[in-house]
Amino acid sequence: MPISGFPEWLPSQRIVEQYVLDKIRSTFELYGFASLETRAVEPLETLLSKGETSKEVYLLRRLQEDAGSSREDQLGLHFDLTVPFARFVTENHGKLQFPFRRYQIQKVWRGERPQEGRYREFLQADIDVVNRDTLPFHFDTEMPLVIGDVFRSLPIPQAVILVNNRKVCEGFYRGLGLDDTAQVLRTVDKLDKIGPDKVAALLVETAGATDAQAQACLRLAAISTSDASFVDAVKALGVSDPLLDEGLGELAQVVEAANEHAPGLIRAELKIARGLDYYTGTVYETQLLGYERFGSICSGGRYENLASVGNTRFPGVGISIGVSRLLGLLFGQGALGASRSVPTCVVVALPSEDQRATCDRIAAALRQRGIPTEVAPTAAKFGKQIQFADRRGIPYVWFPGSPDTVKDIRSGEQVEADPATWTPPAADLHPVVTGS
Amino acid sequence: MPISGFPEWLPSQRIVEQYVLDKIRSTFELYGFASLETRAVEPLETLLSKGETSKEVYLLRRLQEDAGSSREDQLGLHFDLTVPFARFVTENHGKLQFPFRRYQIQKVWRGERPQEGRYREFLQADIDVVNRDTLPFHFDTEMPLVIGDVFRSLPIPQAVILVNNRKVCEGFYRGLGLDDTAQVLRTVDKLDKIGPDKVAALLVETAGATDAQAQACLRLAAISTSDASFVDAVKALGVSDPLLDEGLGELAQVVEAANEHAPGLIRAELKIARGLDYYTGTVYETQLLGYERFGSICSGGRYENLASVGNTRFPGVGISIGVSRLLGLLFGQGALGASRSVPTCVVVALPSEDQRATCDRIAAALRQRGIPTEVAPTAAKFGKQIQFADRRGIPYVWFPGSPDTVKDIRSGEQVEADPATWTPPAADLHPVVTGS
Repeated sequence: MPISGFPEWLPSQRIVEQYVLDKIRSTFELYGFASLETRAVEPLETLLSKGETSKEVYLLRRLQEDAGSSREDQLGLHFDLTVPFARFVTENHGKLQFPFRRYQIQKVWRGERPQEGRYREFLQADIDVVNRDTLPFHFDTEMPLVIGDVFRSLPIPQAVILVNNRKVCEGFYRGLGLDDTAQVLRTVDKLDKIGPDKVAALLVETAGATDAQAQACLRLAAISTSDASFVDAVKALGVSDPLLDEGLGELAQVVEAANEHAPGLIRAELKIARGLDYYTGTVYETQLLGYERFGSICSGGRYENLASVGNTRFPGVGISIGVSRLLGLLFGQGALGASRSVPTCVVVALPSEDQRATCDRIAAALRQRGIPTEVAPTAAKFGKQIQFADRRGIPYVWFPGSPDTVKDIRSGEQVEADPATWTPPAADLHPVVTGS
Repeated sequence: MPISGFPEWLPSQRIVEQYVLDKIRSTFELYGFASLETRAVEPLETLLSKGETSKEVYLLRRLQEDAGSSREDQLGLHFDLTVPFARFVTENHGKLQFPFRRYQIQKVWRGERPQEGRYREFLQADIDVVNRDTLPFHFDTEMPLVIGDVFRSLPIPQAVILVNNRKVCEGFYRGLGLDDTAQVLRTVDKLDKIGPDKVAALLVETAGATDAQAQACLRLAAISTSDASFVDAVKALGVSDPLLDEGLGELAQVVEAANEHAPGLIRAELKIARGLDYYTGTVYETQLLGYERFGSICSGGRYENLASVGNTRFPGVGISIGVSRLLGLLFGQGALGASRSVPTCVVVALPSEDQRATCDRIAAALRQRGIPTEVAPTAAKFGKQIQFADRRGIPYVWFPGSPDTVKDIRSGEQVEADPATWTPPAADLHPVVTGS
């Protein structure tokens, strides 16, 4: 039986998923990110070291295990790819070259209550750059360019990356005279859920804000521009603070680099905060046009304190594509599909079982030249064998003879062909993935 | 800290792993196998339904879970890809086209004590063909061809597929007058571990064999031929049984098809049995020449009773490559490596930080044409920037100028180049993976 929160794709959906993963991977590699896979499990203490996530962890135990295992020995499944990456860096820093650019495409697990678009097992595709001691800011500007290239390579609705910088928020709150900036940030982060009036009330109640301060926070959060004009909009609010200025400068760099690379890709959105996460500067979220209500499908940011070994810090910046989430949304809307459910391009028809060796040789010749080929499973009537191909969306059926012929079963066109030389049109060689 | 039994590869090893997985996948797809991924977890009762594996299962529980969860609700990590595949087929048989050819490349987990070449988390690459009601025998002959093509595409020692057929063994034992054929099979399966004398003694003790019957079983197990001459060798033992004849006929077909496809690929090895597994006919194991002592790196067989729904049976045949096991062995011997630790082909040198935008444009132009490119992280001295490339095995450094030049840092050769047209030799575009 299906298990709630553990999605499984049917073969044609899996073809779409592989296509998407191939595009993600090749874009990541064009930018020089090296692949990494970490084990699925981490010690519980590693998983809990960032706090806030304890309720989500799946712990492991062996069926035959003794009862008295201590907490230190406990292993749990990773719930993201950042915590394992940080652990991997601290464990292997002597063997890595820094700055270390890695991508990681793996399943993660969270023991949450499933709801629409939320899974307990899902696939993430992360990139991060990590360095020893300090990490130049230009890497923050690079993340949206990579993600922009990924999304433009896919047959999906347009993606808009929303970007903010914690320094802008914290500097602004501090400049306003609010000291508990973390509490302000967490509260403003609820804007989309509870609305401005409740946020204002909460700011007064829990963050020691006056009504005027609360309104100023809301005015900051309302700023949203597709270019660097947010800088003037913030300055017009009349708050000044060195951290605010630093944040505005950084955020402007990110927005301007993205606008040069791909107009329309980015938007400075000063309400996003990624409340509970450990970001210290730039933060990213991503909306799909037409799917805004489903929330972010690609998020990340800068963390100055990703990892440390003794006195050495390893700051990083990264972003993570929610692959299962993205596919689940688009499959759910019928907005993404493949032209066939198998990789096969040609079925070699089998006139009779005693000609199987001949048909196998034809198939071998086609495969030798990179053409995915199957031989019909049985010597059924040719009508049945064509149906076998048609049901799977396979475009060609090959008929052995003197000479051999190959039939495009979509058009009905049938031509003489030699397995040593015949080549299908490039568009037919592999399944085609299309959006709607 | 590393966790025993949970291997992790460093970036250059991961490049090798991805290369190997790409080759496996493309060969599987050339034969028309469709990709499938199943969830990592199954209900405990599904995992235990085949028996014999209970000690290996990792169970999950949520950190905050109530104590009183009943056994029916328990989820465990899959320990192979066959049990989940069987479950997927029964769950989705109405949505699948049969015969269903699928491949599945995923991690599996076993809570065993780790030992050399054995892992608790490891990657398997499986192909299976499953059909409704009956599955033609020719699929048994196809498995070694696919695996032979996979192994020939990889820079690894030669692989030899060892093949047997349970019907040969069971028919032979029955023809000899031994009724507990399962017990005989399990005992003969210990031959490599305990030697012929102990096997003979055990056959007498536990399977009711006479000394003469025990010796006949050993003579059968000693037969090993690279062609179909095993048929005569078995017949010379003077045992006759209809099941034996059926098995010999099937086994001869497998051996002959493999010999036509790839001489030297296969060997009929009548001692292999895959003792505890649920195979009913053909069984496969695979040895790497020079690595025989490490055991099989690719195994499988025919199972008439893979799955059933009501009165409908789904027989199958399949084989599984132990990817982590194979890589672990070869990495351990230093017998497999990559020419660089990153996908990057070109580093664009950065003369000064204010020229970063220019360098980014050069990188974008190269990436546009499929050339993996990074811009240097800082405007260090050029010697340092060349060292940055050299340490990662990146072959080219690009120097912006009028005109631009590109340097092959292996040969020192430096030539004028235009980012809109320059192309590296094909062999340099991606890391090269080589055996030793």
